[in-house]
Amino acid sequence: MALKHALTGRERILAAAVELFAEQGFDATSVQEVVDRAQVTKGALYHHFRAKDDLLSEIYGGLLAQQLADLDRILAAGYPPAAALRAIVVDLVETTTSRLAEAAVFAREMHKLADDRMAVLRAQRRRYHETFREVVAAAQRSGTFASTASAEMVTLVVFGVVNQLPQWYRPAGPTAPRQLGEELATFVLAGLGAG
Amino acid sequence: MALKHALTGRERILAAAVELFAEQGFDATSVQEVVDRAQVTKGALYHHFRAKDDLLSEIYGGLLAQQLADLDRILAAGYPPAAALRAIVVDLVETTTSRLAEAAVFAREMHKLADDRMAVLRAQRRRYHETFREVVAAAQRSGTFASTASAEMVTLVVFGVVNQLPQWYRPAGPTAPRQLGEELATFVLAGLGAG
Repeated sequence: MALKHALTGRERILAAAVELFAEQGFDATSVQEVVDRAQVTKGALYHHFRAKDDLLSEIYGGLLAQQLADLDRILAAGYPPAAALRAIVVDLVETTTSRLAEAAVFAREMHKLADDRMAVLRAQRRRYHETFREVVAAAQRSGTFASTASAEMVTLVVFGVVNQLPQWYRPAGPTAPRQLGEELATFVLAGLGAG
Repeated sequence: MALKHALTGRERILAAAVELFAEQGFDATSVQEVVDRAQVTKGALYHHFRAKDDLLSEIYGGLLAQQLADLDRILAAGYPPAAALRAIVVDLVETTTSRLAEAAVFAREMHKLADDRMAVLRAQRRRYHETFREVVAAAQRSGTFASTASAEMVTLVVFGVVNQLPQWYRPAGPTAPRQLGEELATFVLAGLGAG
């Protein structure tokens, strides 16, 4: 409970929503149940979120916003392509494994989101994918990376592994997130002839 | 309608179930709606399937059974490791893209399946993953493939791309399944130093 009390009201609400959506699904969960679980008033919830849909979009939106900020920071550092790709892949694995329940709930329930909310998240995710793809494509054009596969395929490979993490990765397991990210980056760079 | 009439009653029932589960979800679909859409009697449905759960497990079970049969056939042919890996990856992409709606419905609704039915499918999927991983691991032990990444990571890479196909692949798009499978296989083999 020490941890719970360190969270803000907004964070407590989101954590309660993740738990309840994971346990019983988005449709079966009422705003009242989220309020009860988070131990806040209904007024407090509606101060932060207009509707139940907002909870679901923010569960994923928070992770995505962090990943986009990290991506911008990594690219601003001006690393050579191989180091940039490695830093991005490690960050994706570390941020996703730090919010496994959020990622799993969102993957299962996202088709319940209204089109306008989903469109916002899709646009952010597209910006991430397109930026990543361009890192690979630019290095292929300059000859730093081999054109073994299209930059599109390399993007599918990285996000394929990352998107599967919620299905099998357990923090108590033998492999630390950083190690897993490094292993994926090493394999991808070898595939690009930059190992 | 010509195609529909070429299907057996069992196939018509499964096709109707895939359509309805995709349109309105597993929970919201009744056996009566499946019967109406498939234009069969309720008796005909219960001749083939004990319950609505059977429809969902068979939607994925059919694809999985085909992939396992193909895997056994490829391995029985005794190809060298790189050729075997290529044939397996191309087959996975071709079979999955030939049943995109089935794969998408199953991914979304599988958590609705009773534990015993899910356990059967999981065991079959595990046999596929373990066989694939061992193809990679054996070639790494013999030195044919480099140990850039664990055989486990290579398995995650391949299934990560394959499992994402229902989310973006469209048969009308510019890339044929075989070409996509070849591209993935080429990249994976390059990552394993066997390009």
